[in-house]
Amino acid sequence: MRVLVPFDADRPKTRLAEVLDGAERRAFARAMLRDVLAAVRGAGEDPDVLATAPVEWAGEPPDAPVTVDDRPLTAAVNAALDDAGRPLGVVMADLPLLTPAGVERARAATGDVVVAAGRGGGTNALVVRHPDFRVDYHGASYLDHLRAARSAGASVRELDSRRFATDVDEPADLVEVLVHGDGAAVEWLRDAGFRLDAGDGRVDVVRARG
Amino acid sequence: MRVLVPFDADRPKTRLAEVLDGAERRAFARAMLRDVLAAVRGAGEDPDVLATAPVEWAGEPPDAPVTVDDRPLTAAVNAALDDAGRPLGVVMADLPLLTPAGVERARAATGDVVVAAGRGGGTNALVVRHPDFRVDYHGASYLDHLRAARSAGASVRELDSRRFATDVDEPADLVEVLVHGDGAAVEWLRDAGFRLDAGDGRVDVVRARG
Repeated sequence: MRVLVPFDADRPKTRLAEVLDGAERRAFARAMLRDVLAAVRGAGEDPDVLATAPVEWAGEPPDAPVTVDDRPLTAAVNAALDDAGRPLGVVMADLPLLTPAGVERARAATGDVVVAAGRGGGTNALVVRHPDFRVDYHGASYLDHLRAARSAGASVRELDSRRFATDVDEPADLVEVLVHGDGAAVEWLRDAGFRLDAGDGRVDVVRARG
Repeated sequence: MRVLVPFDADRPKTRLAEVLDGAERRAFARAMLRDVLAAVRGAGEDPDVLATAPVEWAGEPPDAPVTVDDRPLTAAVNAALDDAGRPLGVVMADLPLLTPAGVERARAATGDVVVAAGRGGGTNALVVRHPDFRVDYHGASYLDHLRAARSAGASVRELDSRRFATDVDEPADLVEVLVHGDGAAVEWLRDAGFRLDAGDGRVDVVRARG
């Protein structure tokens, strides 16, 4: 199965600006993308990065082609849905907890459209097997995707996965990476000085600057 | 399988104080508890509320006995682990997205200890099949529970579930209930005037006071 991984190569992860500067946010976003690509590859599927601009990898590039499409997310993914065969996976690039087992669960789930929700009503992954289904990532996209599938006459299956649901957008999300991550993203965070701090019973992150 | 559902009957959900007063927080916490008990019952298991004080139900009480133990959570659950047979489930009371299918996945997961993580390093559910495993809910309890299982010589399986991971602690968590809930908690929120607001692309909750 081909798996599209949309990636904002220009100004990723602006909501992390409180804890990471622009160059750091770009590096951390690439590390998360590496984890997603590794999970997809690890499940034996073929990831294809759909990036807003060419990706400048630090170090060895991952084993995945990069297609540049500078349109907004919804338009770029729908153009790919127009052209690609089915099934087609669409997996967000900011899911650093993703594992091959998670990708295998998504592939094994039955349904013309398999949807993995993100936090806040978002959609973090889709497996599209129906020719008429198109995406709309604006707003509460999870509910919109359920409606779109119904309109297309497609059956829908929810993929109940914390690892798919954990998109990293805000500083508090870094806790999830430090607790549950074991790939490039958590390594990047540790190298940047981030640590868990459970001092007062609530878990937080702290950054030691060298 | 017996499934303990620890419940703070005294001062639940203090972090929702910004949007709910004390009586509302108690009522909403009971609605979430009802959803958890219904999911456990729906999976054919036997829920047992482990409450810090007697629970005053509004309306028909759910089909679950209530045991009162006013000790802190860790001590109360470990006392139950001392006395109960195995397997024993321990499921938090603030998981209003839980479904019977989720509980069935937990039961079907192999491992001497099955752990479902919450946000922030927490532990939202356990299935305990090993006699020597004990809990410690302080701090990053997920990592502590992995260590405790290893120390006890118990095999561990992670249950990768967004529905188990979605504990409702803060106002932002109400979005999850309004998007994905279909039980007593979402009904309570709607009756209290809460609605999704996706006006500017980011999804939030608003409350209309009648």
